[in-house]
Amino acid sequence: MRLPVSTWPDIEAWLKKSKTIVIPIGSFEQHGPNGFIGTDALCPEIIANHAESLAPDDILVGPTFNVGCAQHHLGFTGTITLRPSTMIAVMTDWTESLMRHGFERIYWLNGHGGNIATIEAAFSEIHARRSFDPRGETNRPGLSLKRRDWWDFKEVMGICNELYPVGHGSHATPSEVSVTYWGYPERERSKTAMSPKIAPSGTIGDAIQYRRDFPDGRIGSDPTQSSVEDGGKIVAVAAKCVIEEVARFSA
Amino acid sequence: MRLPVSTWPDIEAWLKKSKTIVIPIGSFEQHGPNGFIGTDALCPEIIANHAESLAPDDILVGPTFNVGCAQHHLGFTGTITLRPSTMIAVMTDWTESLMRHGFERIYWLNGHGGNIATIEAAFSEIHARRSFDPRGETNRPGLSLKRRDWWDFKEVMGICNELYPVGHGSHATPSEVSVTYWGYPERERSKTAMSPKIAPSGTIGDAIQYRRDFPDGRIGSDPTQSSVEDGGKIVAVAAKCVIEEVARFSA
Amino acid sequence: MRLPVSTWPDIEAWLKKSKTIVIPIGSFEQHGPNGFIGTDALCPEIIANHAESLAPDDILVGPTFNVGCAQHHLGFTGTITLRPSTMIAVMTDWTESLMRHGFERIYWLNGHGGNIATIEAAFSEIHARRSFDPRGETNRPGLSLKRRDWWDFKEVMGICNELYPVGHGSHATPSEVSVTYWGYPERERSKTAMSPKIAPSGTIGDAIQYRRDFPDGRIGSDPTQSSVEDGGKIVAVAAKCVIEEVARFSA
Amino acid sequence: MRLPVSTWPDIEAWLKKSKTIVIPIGSFEQHGPNGFIGTDALCPEIIANHAESLAPDDILVGPTFNVGCAQHHLGFTGTITLRPSTMIAVMTDWTESLMRHGFERIYWLNGHGGNIATIEAAFSEIHARRSFDPRGETNRPGLSLKRRDWWDFKEVMGICNELYPVGHGSHATPSEVSVTYWGYPERERSKTAMSPKIAPSGTIGDAIQYRRDFPDGRIGSDPTQSSVEDGGKIVAVAAKCVIEEVARFSA
Amino acid sequence: MRLPVSTWPDIEAWLKKSKTIVIPIGSFEQHGPNGFIGTDALCPEIIANHAESLAPDDILVGPTFNVGCAQHHLGFTGTITLRPSTMIAVMTDWTESLMRHGFERIYWLNGHGGNIATIEAAFSEIHARRSFDPRGETNRPGLSLKRRDWWDFKEVMGICNELYPVGHGSHATPSEVSVTYWGYPERERSKTAMSPKIAPSGTIGDAIQYRRDFPDGRIGSDPTQSSVEDGGKIVAVAAKCVIEEVARFSA
Amino acid sequence: MRLPVSTWPDIEAWLKKSKTIVIPIGSFEQHGPNGFIGTDALCPEIIANHAESLAPDDILVGPTFNVGCAQHHLGFTGTITLRPSTMIAVMTDWTESLMRHGFERIYWLNGHGGNIATIEAAFSEIHARRSFDPRGETNRPGLSLKRRDWWDFKEVMGICNELYPVGHGSHATPSEVSVTYWGYPERERSKTAMSPKIAPSGTIGDAIQYRRDFPDGRIGSDPTQSSVEDGGKIVAVAAKCVIEEVARFSA
Repeated sequence: MRLPVSTWPDIEAWLKKSKTIVIPIGSFEQHGPNGFIGTDALCPEIIANHAESLAPDDILVGPTFNVGCAQHHLGFTGTITLRPSTMIAVMTDWTESLMRHGFERIYWLNGHGGNIATIEAAFSEIHARRSFDPRGETNRPGLSLKRRDWWDFKEVMGICNELYPVGHGSHATPSEVSVTYWGYPERERSKTAMSPKIAPSGTIGDAIQYRRDFPDGRIGSDPTQSSVEDGGKIVAVAAKCVIEEVARFSA
Repeated sequence: MRLPVSTWPDIEAWLKKSKTIVIPIGSFEQHGPNGFIGTDALCPEIIANHAESLAPDDILVGPTFNVGCAQHHLGFTGTITLRPSTMIAVMTDWTESLMRHGFERIYWLNGHGGNIATIEAAFSEIHARRSFDPRGETNRPGLSLKRRDWWDFKEVMGICNELYPVGHGSHATPSEVSVTYWGYPERERSKTAMSPKIAPSGTIGDAIQYRRDFPDGRIGSDPTQSSVEDGGKIVAVAAKCVIEEVARFSA
Repeated sequence: MRLPVSTWPDIEAWLKKSKTIVIPIGSFEQHGPNGFIGTDALCPEIIANHAESLAPDDILVGPTFNVGCAQHHLGFTGTITLRPSTMIAVMTDWTESLMRHGFERIYWLNGHGGNIATIEAAFSEIHARRSFDPRGETNRPGLSLKRRDWWDFKEVMGICNELYPVGHGSHATPSEVSVTYWGYPERERSKTAMSPKIAPSGTIGDAIQYRRDFPDGRIGSDPTQSSVEDGGKIVAVAAKCVIEEVARFSA
Repeated sequence: MRLPVSTWPDIEAWLKKSKTIVIPIGSFEQHGPNGFIGTDALCPEIIANHAESLAPDDILVGPTFNVGCAQHHLGFTGTITLRPSTMIAVMTDWTESLMRHGFERIYWLNGHGGNIATIEAAFSEIHARRSFDPRGETNRPGLSLKRRDWWDFKEVMGICNELYPVGHGSHATPSEVSVTYWGYPERERSKTAMSPKIAPSGTIGDAIQYRRDFPDGRIGSDPTQSSVEDGGKIVAVAAKCVIEEVARFSA
Repeated sequence: MRLPVSTWPDIEAWLKKSKTIVIPIGSFEQHGPNGFIGTDALCPEIIANHAESLAPDDILVGPTFNVGCAQHHLGFTGTITLRPSTMIAVMTDWTESLMRHGFERIYWLNGHGGNIATIEAAFSEIHARRSFDPRGETNRPGLSLKRRDWWDFKEVMGICNELYPVGHGSHATPSEVSVTYWGYPERERSKTAMSPKIAPSGTIGDAIQYRRDFPDGRIGSDPTQSSVEDGGKIVAVAAKCVIEEVARFSA
Repeated sequence: MRLPVSTWPDIEAWLKKSKTIVIPIGSFEQHGPNGFIGTDALCPEIIANHAESLAPDDILVGPTFNVGCAQHHLGFTGTITLRPSTMIAVMTDWTESLMRHGFERIYWLNGHGGNIATIEAAFSEIHARRSFDPRGETNRPGLSLKRRDWWDFKEVMGICNELYPVGHGSHATPSEVSVTYWGYPERERSKTAMSPKIAPSGTIGDAIQYRRDFPDGRIGSDPTQSSVEDGGKIVAVAAKCVIEEVARFSA
């Protein structure tokens, strides 16, 4: 089921059989010369929705948490970010809303490495409300909060390594770009010129340092390898993994 | 242009000709027995994207700010809300990000009455940063921030009154439900039974009071009148109004 | 009864018969060449206190919330403002204090258009505490929060239009200035020279834009029409409206 | 000059000769069986205004910061309080507003012992903005922030000890009650019965402990000794001290 | 007992006999030419630990709250500070943690005058949580929070006056420097040259004003008088006072 | 050099040759039946100070950030925690203080897995200040912020695996307990009885879940293997790694 296009009685019915919801969570940030700014939000959204289309009775997909932590990309136009403290507040409000209705397991399908720390910090912030309360056990239901980076399933990594043995890199990778091309094939633009073919690698600090060290935005990648077809393969594998893991998480 | 599926060089090029961006802003909240929970986010997104498809060189559509202020709907499953103070922080971060790139005019196309106060409060919060600064005039560019409720264009109200002379109401209205049905025709479900035909009206406080006074979530409306076809008509009018107003706003 | 000059046993006695309190809420901001900086706090205070003097057993007037949201006036000396996020925190603390004692209905008599959004956002913030709580219904009493802009009663608008058919405008209006002159007749200074006679109109952004567009602080008004006598008439009408509305609100 | 009933050109003129402003700062809290809830706001307001009436060219009195830190009094109806963190935010906003206009010396005339810590903490919070900034010296003007508790002038303590050698106490004191009676003589009610004649003394924690230990709200005092006449004497001495100290502070 | 080097079963056993904990609280800030930056954290830590070594069954010493409020010292390298609002948040979290375990009395042994206001403000912030709650009495245990400045015991002041009749001053005093030398005798450096012998006195504002008025960091003091031996004497007296006061506080 | 026992002129001299500082950062939380509550703060402090003693001219050690993120341990007495949002504020204040003095590289030597996410989130929060500023490049110096978990050096992991091939686990591990025993040999208590010998493993949520799943606090470990001697070996290796990495970081 997809929450955005469902009614409240639909969700009330869902809660009678499951306490689990999947929230795609991403970022809006530059993805090099041929990757979409929305890449990190679109990938988990595409994968979650594909999983839902395969197993509509087993997966409830909530709205996409689209803008995340991307301060280091602000040197490139179009990037939009939350400060981590803002993101913690937002994730808390979303979670408290869902908890209000009886959801007990929230599975955040993450599309952005730069979100990982803040997502985990938000989990602690949320759990702390129950942990601090001397009567937490009775005052407030327990919650299971889980983050899964979509690229981090073993099988997903397997196919990505297979497809892109060279030039996968870590930002604006051919795998994530392919996933978005599969989702928006009319906007495919893999053959954009870029130089060097494989972008440099290095460490990440603030936006000024990032732009200086990674002038076209990519890190270690060659996304000219991206294709709609590859995207479809990756999405198929990732969606299968999500379905299986959500089933285990809900058990 | 659509920012989510554009690259950073695309946006850099856009900024050479325009400093304006359109941000659809909504809410995730119950919309009665046959309206989608995402209605208030989907309506401005659908309208903005339709406007963009008609005038791709004149409109840049950013990501949808999908979850807004809906505490009063928390009595119905599926509603997700931000506290107003959180929403102010988020809108500030989005705006500061856009300002960083050189955007000077942000047009928030709003889909939710319950967002109005907080959007305007956020505008003040953002403007205050420049207003408080003794050197504001030189330290920080000025910004034009504008909110437009999509239903509030004179021509849009005209067609809605024409289509629904009775039972339009103010929440879960046939006009907004129709817009979402036009966007997602495969999910049309206008003929859902509801009783009374026209929902009661009244004032809004917290979630407990709301559920007590409006037991199926609607206020004053009869959304069984909704249809894909009506939605198309409304979107056409609203998109035209948006194109015209954005042109004036950017001038 | 006036809370500032009452004792706690007085208020304890009041609560046995009524759960309602009136809070005048204003702003401290420039009001053009002859209007007081305190105008927007003084008007609701004067009206509320006059209402109380007419119906001392039916109205309890609390302290005046004197400084509100006026960032756009910071270009003029003497203006003092809260950021909206601060104002939300303050209104929350005041309301939680009153709720602690058993007040259930708070009627905010507002003197400033620029406060409207933030007051409404604060209401949502406050209601959200109960709405988010899975046990809200039992953990926390419900509250009725109402904002009334003193100039917005039909009868008040009637007399203002009658007194000032031309040059009423929207900031530093002759009606609000008259109300303060009636309250502080020794400080009447209606005949201050100003040019043009009727100030320009336009939209409001930050303080730098405001001062540029409205160089003496007025918007659309000619407050040289103000008089003590007019103020008395307006206060009489407004106080009557407040008494009646508070009675309905408390019922 | 009194800022609330002055115009912005008045304040602009003031700033040509002085960078100092006096802000009365108080609290709204129970003051025993015959003291007003507004006592701690009214006392500094009355004294500051009296000083201004004696030396109108030398003193500029701003709006009264009326609600302060009184959580320990919440066990008594009518008390309204800010949390300290809120109060720091509010004082910061007021100060930043005044600094924006060119004020450099803010003299907070305090009426409440329970405010002392938070006022001083707010001063540190405000100073920290300049102290943290590596370019603070050029980016931001320096500020002098001073707190004066009105009862703490040597001459004021002298007259209070003389008037009330027994039963002055520390909360709901005859001196503060007298000051408010002088300000509002029609509401004098010194002869209210209370028992014991002199209230108990002790330490202060939260509101529940306070009400348990000080059942009618007084601490160590016998405010039946209060009188309008005494109030006038105290105000005269305190106003003189304020005038002198403000002159030294501004030098 | 010392919490940092105890186990959780140790603390569980402690709570069966006492609900009291001692928290040394300090600051990290310059202390003139020969005082350690950690002076204000080290002094209460040294004294508390010495007290504990004398009465291990009667005193539980928690971790040292080492960085406090020192914005005014930021003009000197090495100073680290919290903003007061941050410090209030931190003290709240520490206290809520301790309350969770059943501690009811927290004795903050303070080493820094600049912390006093913020510590007291934090106490109000913490107490307010219970005071605001209409059901505070049953929802949350009461807490006793006490601040003691180690130099402020009568006997400690006695010995300091005796040891340093001249040049004690108020910052970088020979008494506090001596205490740290006793704790770290290998780092004694009392004979560092400084001029003038006795530092100037004055008022404190922000860091720029402080450095201008107190160029080597001292206020009114001559810390060349410091010695390991003096430190031992002061610690002995202070530790005895702490033991006695903690016993009274716990009773 | 050790900042806590250095003077400000010492640090001023240090900054002439290096812009780097090492901050040990830990947590105060239960560490099973025989581990100290302070373990996670003591380990990096011990290692950093040992490194400093070996290379005093190359390492500057700041104060220990002792209380971190440990909400999940609140079910065990003695645990003290910050909420992640508080910790971000504190780390920001510490970093802004150090930046004020000219430090450009801050090396956080971390002792607690539960801190990792929040430390990284804090880094983003801090970097965002420069990244958001349209004039960030000139307004604010760049900072290098690095987190190193002391157990995560390859050589440290090597010796730990060698010493404890079985029962190392992930909380209350014999390696961390040994490090603290080496630091505080008089408090060694390795032979405390515990059962089962090797604690269970699992996932971490809130404090109630943690205590239920890990009843004596350990996860996967057998800390009866700890010894002072082992601690010395581990500290020697870790200190060497820190010296080498700090040298590379400062280059």
